[in-house]
Amino acid sequence: MDITTLLGIIIGIVSLILGFVLEGGKIGALIQLTAIIIVFGGTIGAVIIGTPFKKLKKVPFIIKYAFVDGKASPKETIDQLIDLSNISRREGLLALEGALHDSDNEFLKDGIQMIIDGGDAEMIQDIISRKIEKREERILSIAKVFEAAGGFAPTMGIIGTVMGLVHILGQLDDPQSLGPSIAVAFIATLYGVASANMIYLPLYNKVKARLNEEIMMMELQAEGLLSIQYGENSTILKSKLMAFLDEQEYEELTDKDVIESE
Amino acid sequence: MDITTLLGIIIGIVSLILGFVLEGGKIGALIQLTAIIIVFGGTIGAVIIGTPFKKLKKVPFIIKYAFVDGKASPKETIDQLIDLSNISRREGLLALEGALHDSDNEFLKDGIQMIIDGGDAEMIQDIISRKIEKREERILSIAKVFEAAGGFAPTMGIIGTVMGLVHILGQLDDPQSLGPSIAVAFIATLYGVASANMIYLPLYNKVKARLNEEIMMMELQAEGLLSIQYGENSTILKSKLMAFLDEQEYEELTDKDVIESE
Amino acid sequence: MDITTLLGIIIGIVSLILGFVLEGGKIGALIQLTAIIIVFGGTIGAVIIGTPFKKLKKVPFIIKYAFVDGKASPKETIDQLIDLSNISRREGLLALEGALHDSDNEFLKDGIQMIIDGGDAEMIQDIISRKIEKREERILSIAKVFEAAGGFAPTMGIIGTVMGLVHILGQLDDPQSLGPSIAVAFIATLYGVASANMIYLPLYNKVKARLNEEIMMMELQAEGLLSIQYGENSTILKSKLMAFLDEQEYEELTDKDVIESE
Amino acid sequence: MDITTLLGIIIGIVSLILGFVLEGGKIGALIQLTAIIIVFGGTIGAVIIGTPFKKLKKVPFIIKYAFVDGKASPKETIDQLIDLSNISRREGLLALEGALHDSDNEFLKDGIQMIIDGGDAEMIQDIISRKIEKREERILSIAKVFEAAGGFAPTMGIIGTVMGLVHILGQLDDPQSLGPSIAVAFIATLYGVASANMIYLPLYNKVKARLNEEIMMMELQAEGLLSIQYGENSTILKSKLMAFLDEQEYEELTDKDVIESE
Amino acid sequence: MDITTLLGIIIGIVSLILGFVLEGGKIGALIQLTAIIIVFGGTIGAVIIGTPFKKLKKVPFIIKYAFVDGKASPKETIDQLIDLSNISRREGLLALEGALHDSDNEFLKDGIQMIIDGGDAEMIQDIISRKIEKREERILSIAKVFEAAGGFAPTMGIIGTVMGLVHILGQLDDPQSLGPSIAVAFIATLYGVASANMIYLPLYNKVKARLNEEIMMMELQAEGLLSIQYGENSTILKSKLMAFLDEQEYEELTDKDVIESE
Repeated sequence: MDITTLLGIIIGIVSLILGFVLEGGKIGALIQLTAIIIVFGGTIGAVIIGTPFKKLKKVPFIIKYAFVDGKASPKETIDQLIDLSNISRREGLLALEGALHDSDNEFLKDGIQMIIDGGDAEMIQDIISRKIEKREERILSIAKVFEAAGGFAPTMGIIGTVMGLVHILGQLDDPQSLGPSIAVAFIATLYGVASANMIYLPLYNKVKARLNEEIMMMELQAEGLLSIQYGENSTILKSKLMAFLDEQEYEELTDKDVIESE
Repeated sequence: MDITTLLGIIIGIVSLILGFVLEGGKIGALIQLTAIIIVFGGTIGAVIIGTPFKKLKKVPFIIKYAFVDGKASPKETIDQLIDLSNISRREGLLALEGALHDSDNEFLKDGIQMIIDGGDAEMIQDIISRKIEKREERILSIAKVFEAAGGFAPTMGIIGTVMGLVHILGQLDDPQSLGPSIAVAFIATLYGVASANMIYLPLYNKVKARLNEEIMMMELQAEGLLSIQYGENSTILKSKLMAFLDEQEYEELTDKDVIESE
Repeated sequence: MDITTLLGIIIGIVSLILGFVLEGGKIGALIQLTAIIIVFGGTIGAVIIGTPFKKLKKVPFIIKYAFVDGKASPKETIDQLIDLSNISRREGLLALEGALHDSDNEFLKDGIQMIIDGGDAEMIQDIISRKIEKREERILSIAKVFEAAGGFAPTMGIIGTVMGLVHILGQLDDPQSLGPSIAVAFIATLYGVASANMIYLPLYNKVKARLNEEIMMMELQAEGLLSIQYGENSTILKSKLMAFLDEQEYEELTDKDVIESE
Repeated sequence: MDITTLLGIIIGIVSLILGFVLEGGKIGALIQLTAIIIVFGGTIGAVIIGTPFKKLKKVPFIIKYAFVDGKASPKETIDQLIDLSNISRREGLLALEGALHDSDNEFLKDGIQMIIDGGDAEMIQDIISRKIEKREERILSIAKVFEAAGGFAPTMGIIGTVMGLVHILGQLDDPQSLGPSIAVAFIATLYGVASANMIYLPLYNKVKARLNEEIMMMELQAEGLLSIQYGENSTILKSKLMAFLDEQEYEELTDKDVIESE
Repeated sequence: MDITTLLGIIIGIVSLILGFVLEGGKIGALIQLTAIIIVFGGTIGAVIIGTPFKKLKKVPFIIKYAFVDGKASPKETIDQLIDLSNISRREGLLALEGALHDSDNEFLKDGIQMIIDGGDAEMIQDIISRKIEKREERILSIAKVFEAAGGFAPTMGIIGTVMGLVHILGQLDDPQSLGPSIAVAFIATLYGVASANMIYLPLYNKVKARLNEEIMMMELQAEGLLSIQYGENSTILKSKLMAFLDEQEYEELTDKDVIESE
């Protein structure tokens, strides 16, 4: 569970409502059925038009993707790859199969399997690069649902408010109720802008940030796989992999003595 | 028929109108001839100026493109390509011609034909790459009609509303009718923003999403064609093609035993 | 003469004015000298500051470029290139000079001349690629005048309106005339938004669309020139060039029997 | 002196003020100290925060860059390069040093010097490419000051106006003065939008346009330098360099007989 | 300490407040708790949702990065690299270790260490390029916090103002207080626009500018390291490195006689 996604939503929404209540507003005044229908119905409609059914089905997946914590640990992965490199050099490529038996890292297992099967180095590199590229394209193409919703929601809010004003101004029978009616019309703008900026766009940002981490981890493993196939020694492998680390991780890993043997 | 395009339009428009009616508005108040002329006439004019006649003629095609369901099935295509690879290796390249006799996939048939004709591998790859690239450019250049309409419509709405205000404020004879007149002026804004965000921009998104799928399918077939030309065995071909699949498709295809013989 | 450019401008402007008149507005109310000075003077000033004199001189050219119909006919050009290829293979390179004697296509003639002069293949390709690239840069750098005008005009409209409001609100002597005065102030906004969206930006779109067609035609000819230099047979050349065509053109050309001899 | 930069500023500002005066406004009403402090102080502050001191020091240089006329004359440069090529082929590389003795073109002189020093061709090309690239980066990084100012100024204007409204609405003692007070508040918006669109953004455009010309001239000279080093004859050199010219310059140069000897 | 960051913030904020006070406003009128909660709470919430915890932890680092002065001195670094090159050619690669003993430049030291360890030239280049690339990605991914805050803050301001208006218009009991209430509602807009344009976006610009300098310094050192590994003489090295300098630095360095021996 990525606590920051939930925490951010709570902090954001509590701040908005708290500010409103402290000013003396009543929460009930913020809830209005017609604005909900216009803003959320309109946004959902616009998003559905623009998204193939195949991608729409993946919306629950992408929401989960934004909420679940990425387990990306470059340091552990580097240790694991160096271990695999050592095993491969000491006991031969076939020993790698056993070493990954318990792992649930399908990307790494498939790569190792291709190496064991004796695939051509360039071909393996091509396949791995394409997997990474297609993974990125796929996640982004689903995440576009959030981006689209974040773009359409404020305009649906404006549509709702203008519709409200059209209705109100069209029948100025009761000038007394003009103020409260306009207040109600503004609720739609509020829904549109708030849903876009508290939900859709931040979730889109989170998906992109998590995807970046995931892709970086896949590139790290791809580098390791290639090095194992070429049979490079683990000092060289370590130098290559450590270029992926930030300064802090770099120091932590340099202090440890991870390379047991060569 | 891609049901989501139509469904989305219905959900969106019903939501907007339902919200307006529930607030007590009358649908008739939303229909206004002068706003229709200004917003839709202005948008059509601006789009026509910016689009060559050759592309304008293709607008019905691109609308159909957004509504018709893409038949992209990577799994079936991978099966078909592996079948072709097996036929080619068992019975020779010439047997491929018969195998595709009934297919209506012109892209694949042309590629196979070039291989049978004994074309140079690099040349075939160049021609196929260019076909994919030109297909992408062509569809996008027509889809720009939607993008342009989505950009111009809201500004035409603003022009309509400002014109309305200029007319109203220019003759304040009857202050009583000020409210209803302003309401009428806002209808143009409503038309502009709603048509852009419920029709033009979502359709543009759909065309881009469908095009991405189509291009991905073409790249998949291009990969298969090259592999067939090089006479690679179907295990290697399968590994290459499966890099295009997402996790779910990947598992489905791994479970099946698609490779009959080598 | 590209009829769509003119037609679009007429449709657009007639729509705007018709809508205004049907609402009961008088055309005279839309014409106002001070707004013309502020909006068009301001836009011209901002564009002149940002554009070197060398590019400003080319503005009449780029306007003509947007209005004159492109003569791009990929099918005819493919026929011509295949003819040239056949001539070159039957009668030798020198015969090409005569074949192009009447043509006014300088790009093609210069290319053929370089081949006849016996230039190095790679060098000719470099020169042709650079010509295409520089042509694109040049047209775009002049077209930026429209893009800039389309960006500045609406802000000049806002400046005009705000200036009007400053003037009006600064001397509320005659509250009676407040409405008509504000109406007049809004004319500047109208000019700014309408000129940007009915003239500058659509013309910018048209120039870009025409340029794309022209560049595509140049790439088609470059491909043909290279093929002629390498002495490839016309079946191969035809396959290469037809990758540039869309589906409809493709079928038309396949049905005809353009290749007379090899 | 690039007359268009100054001319544009004069045309723009005169248009705005003339329009205002013709409407009956007094110029004095447009001058207001607090708006000047808020808009220009705020913009300067925001720009200073975002720009390293090293770049801030170069602001006078970049202003001069936008006002001084570029001396780019591709035709003269081509003549000069062909002359140098002829000298080099007739009299040897060392003779080039004398030929450039009086030139103040440091870029060309340094390039010739590297050739005379017998540098490796690939290395010289690398160094020249990097010089061009770094020049472009440097000018753009300083020009970003204008871009940033153009982005911040309108928002500072809005801040000024909102502050004014907060002040006015907070103390409605004298309803009589409401109008003039709001007029004053709008002056800040006017300053922000006008300074961005009459000064900062057009100057940014001019710097980019001039930089494009300068870079094109550098690429032209780089091409010439390489050709001289390879000892290519001046017909080939001329073909290569003329690809940089537009149609009009091309014809002018073709008519002249610039190549004296080979 | 980069004095411009702090100086800019002071100039900007003083300008805004000074302008307000000179108009007769009281500073107290600008401070309002509910707007602070809505705008800053909402912005923080939206940023937290969209940023992984790993990046959030680095916010203090990136603030420091914007305030601390970069020590980038290309001239000194070029001197140092030429010294190293001379040492390496005179005393051998191993002597480099001693020469860098006191340096705290980890990037340069690691590079030298790889050369001393006898790593393959291409591999070292790969590792160094990746380090530079990853450094850039990392800093930018943290700086996105400022970019996101700069995008969300103004919309939170709008939400705050609309909420205020909803509250005020919903209960028009006391028409007298309408003006002051609206004034208070506008404070939220003020906070949102001012915090984005005086703090978040300028700081984002500063981080990007400083990062550009840092990356340029890293590329300069990478070039030097490669040259040292290839054992190039220091004249060539100097030519290569001086392509990174601007005109002024270039002249300063040319005048000095930095190369002691070869």
